[in-house]
Amino acid sequence: MLKAQRKRTDYTRWFRDVTLMAEVYDYRVLVKGCGVWPGYGFKLRNNVLNIIKSLLDATGHEECLFPLLIPQSLLAKEGEHIRSFEKEVFWVTKGGETELEEKLALRPTSETVIMPMFKLWIQSHTDLPKKVYQVVSVFRYETKATHPMIRVREVTMFKEAHTAHATYEDAERQVKEAIEIYRKFFDELSIPYVISKRPVWDKFAGAVYTISFDTLMPEGRTLQIGTVHNLGQNFSKPFEVEFLKPDGSRDYVYTTSYGVSERVIAALISIHGDDHGLLLPPKVAPIQVVIVPIPYKGKEREVYEASRKLYETLKEVGVRVKLDDRDDVTPGEKFYFWELKGVPVRVEIGPKDLEGGTVTLSRRDTLERTRHPVEELEVKVKELFKEIERSLSERSWREFREHLIYVNTLEEAKELVAKQEGIIHVAWCGSDDCGLKLESEVQGRVLGTPLDEKVEGKCVVCGENASYYVRLAKTY
Amino acid sequence: MLKAQRKRTDYTRWFRDVTLMAEVYDYRVLVKGCGVWPGYGFKLRNNVLNIIKSLLDATGHEECLFPLLIPQSLLAKEGEHIRSFEKEVFWVTKGGETELEEKLALRPTSETVIMPMFKLWIQSHTDLPKKVYQVVSVFRYETKATHPMIRVREVTMFKEAHTAHATYEDAERQVKEAIEIYRKFFDELSIPYVISKRPVWDKFAGAVYTISFDTLMPEGRTLQIGTVHNLGQNFSKPFEVEFLKPDGSRDYVYTTSYGVSERVIAALISIHGDDHGLLLPPKVAPIQVVIVPIPYKGKEREVYEASRKLYETLKEVGVRVKLDDRDDVTPGEKFYFWELKGVPVRVEIGPKDLEGGTVTLSRRDTLERTRHPVEELEVKVKELFKEIERSLSERSWREFREHLIYVNTLEEAKELVAKQEGIIHVAWCGSDDCGLKLESEVQGRVLGTPLDEKVEGKCVVCGENASYYVRLAKTY
Repeated sequence: MLKAQRKRTDYTRWFRDVTLMAEVYDYRVLVKGCGVWPGYGFKLRNNVLNIIKSLLDATGHEECLFPLLIPQSLLAKEGEHIRSFEKEVFWVTKGGETELEEKLALRPTSETVIMPMFKLWIQSHTDLPKKVYQVVSVFRYETKATHPMIRVREVTMFKEAHTAHATYEDAERQVKEAIEIYRKFFDELSIPYVISKRPVWDKFAGAVYTISFDTLMPEGRTLQIGTVHNLGQNFSKPFEVEFLKPDGSRDYVYTTSYGVSERVIAALISIHGDDHGLLLPPKVAPIQVVIVPIPYKGKEREVYEASRKLYETLKEVGVRVKLDDRDDVTPGEKFYFWELKGVPVRVEIGPKDLEGGTVTLSRRDTLERTRHPVEELEVKVKELFKEIERSLSERSWREFREHLIYVNTLEEAKELVAKQEGIIHVAWCGSDDCGLKLESEVQGRVLGTPLDEKVEGKCVVCGENASYYVRLAKTY
Repeated sequence: MLKAQRKRTDYTRWFRDVTLMAEVYDYRVLVKGCGVWPGYGFKLRNNVLNIIKSLLDATGHEECLFPLLIPQSLLAKEGEHIRSFEKEVFWVTKGGETELEEKLALRPTSETVIMPMFKLWIQSHTDLPKKVYQVVSVFRYETKATHPMIRVREVTMFKEAHTAHATYEDAERQVKEAIEIYRKFFDELSIPYVISKRPVWDKFAGAVYTISFDTLMPEGRTLQIGTVHNLGQNFSKPFEVEFLKPDGSRDYVYTTSYGVSERVIAALISIHGDDHGLLLPPKVAPIQVVIVPIPYKGKEREVYEASRKLYETLKEVGVRVKLDDRDDVTPGEKFYFWELKGVPVRVEIGPKDLEGGTVTLSRRDTLERTRHPVEELEVKVKELFKEIERSLSERSWREFREHLIYVNTLEEAKELVAKQEGIIHVAWCGSDDCGLKLESEVQGRVLGTPLDEKVEGKCVVCGENASYYVRLAKTY
């Protein structure tokens, strides 16, 4: 069933089927736009979250929890913010049979509920910087077609960080720190990305500017997988988050916010997976090694005993290992099943291995099988983990870079965007006019400008001198 | 400020102030009935959750995540359930400016959203038992006065488990397993409890019966801290969760559900805390040991160096340790601060300790100070952890048992309930009539009957033979 749905030719169906069959995500929609995470998917989620949490904890962010319900008056305090969100917010208007005096929004993001707490928590420059984060569900009333994990009404894994600073410069430093944290996070997952400064017409509502991480999905559309916002004093002023400076004067704090969501998991699955199913990096795989005994007439007991020993050996050294000793399923079916689940390393042990004192290892990425002395099991497994991660990263970045394309004319850009060939770079004068024209001409989106790539050339729209590249693509 | 608010004489204020000042919970209400968990409180929460998660994981429960929004038609499928909840559910009626075709409830509990998934996941007896849980926010439109952590509109730490079984007997076994899990959980936290079978008029809406854990709060009111429900086929029938039996026939599954919430943390804080602030069991304390250097003229450098060494020693062996080396705060202020935060063990090191090669340990529960050779630090600290936990448990159970009172007449019961003397036991014939009369007579609640205590006597209401005790108390 799955093999027929090739990832490249019918990606949407492949994604839905593979996440369902591997028990990662169940989107047989109970509630429009809201998915369910079964046990296996939830473990994967946790392993991914643990990476970003460690990175945040190590840089002085504190995990907190803020309320889901935001009274309309709070959500409306920052004008640009509410204008952008009011059309896509879910509103609670009734408690039991009572009409509420003030309607409550399900948080679409938490700036407006965190600012009042910052106001209470921050008095003086000695309270700064303040860096908090939470992992929560956020809600968007999506009216377009939804897509599992990618365009949903309940975003269940929104990791949002919020920080406050004494100066604009310090907020700028925080933006850089956030970018570094996300770089490391995506690097750990072998997910390739470009970092762009979003054009003004596409920045976060209320931000001074937005930096975004985009990756490329199998059908050639980009997916925004992380954003970092410098909010300046845009929120602290309406929310009156003031602090006492060392010189005795007062100022409003400068804030930033940055977030990632389960889109990271959608990217992880889509980029590494293949026609056999998931392919999970060992770092985040809920099961890193599966042991499949190959029992053989008359040798069943010995094979099962040896399998159990291998299991104990790996478990003892902290490997997340599973022994599949079901006796009503053939080894072949087990191979198929665990490949679908994306388990990075399979250990087989049969009578031949028993005789020779060996084990057979199979790696999920290349499906290559090798035989090793049983004493080397632990060492070889750990080598394979590293090798698989190196290879996943190398492969995903190589493929990604092949789709970073630089062209000189609008015509070429138009054609390549239409064909979903990847992320198309053209020279751009930097004006909003030319940017918006670009978007409508190529029928795609302006992702923004690279942070550090400069160009000398002529804007492909107006012909004026250009000092920027701009990235164009079809997006989610 | 805090010392003036004695736990016994003004408990409500004590609780609000101590949780705020110790940075566990911030209830300076942003949104009515919704609290904020700052960093320290969030860590405490996590440590508590990790205990219950380990117990659930070890007994074959899988952590999952189900949607927050429940369409009205799903919530209404089980008649008794919806009748009980419809008056206290928050309803989402609008998406942006659009009126929704069907209103959506914020989950008050998740039976009605998990059942449809069980229907998809369970086909045959080989899929049973199925045991899942999630930790999520649930919502109740509380119209009574709210109370931080205890009676809130957003319950942020709802751990709800849901199971499905092939037979009623297996569901019964599951109820017993759940009770054992909760026993261990509360025992780990040194929280005393009674276990009662709730009277029929107070069972969970849709349950066959409900078993409840109640503890006693400082002002003599009981607090329900955990419930276990046998749901029989009451949910599986309307939701059509059928399975194939080994004999080829079909039946509806039998389900159970059981939950705990942040009320556990409210109990933990209220039962162990004192007029100095929090008093946290080492098992769950975010900081288990604080090291306070006592610098002394001319010996500052040596004291700080020695403190750092102690810090490294404890950190290395996995103790959650904090070195408080702030130099703008006196040791006395530090003592006060960390006592408020409930850190179970304080290590002081001053010039006298330096000379003698000793350290001074102070335990938070008794405030007793002892001096030990520095080489014994690790051993002594770990001994103290055990000793503090033993002593907290011993003390809390002793106090609790003093308030389990058995009386022979309605008059006595009435007087003791009015005085909030604890949990009052009287003989009861078991009829609803007499039970409801008891409630109105004593102006308190019937908690239910003990699971295993039998009595021979006469019902204090009707005078008929009684085979049960019934527990009465003022409750939250």
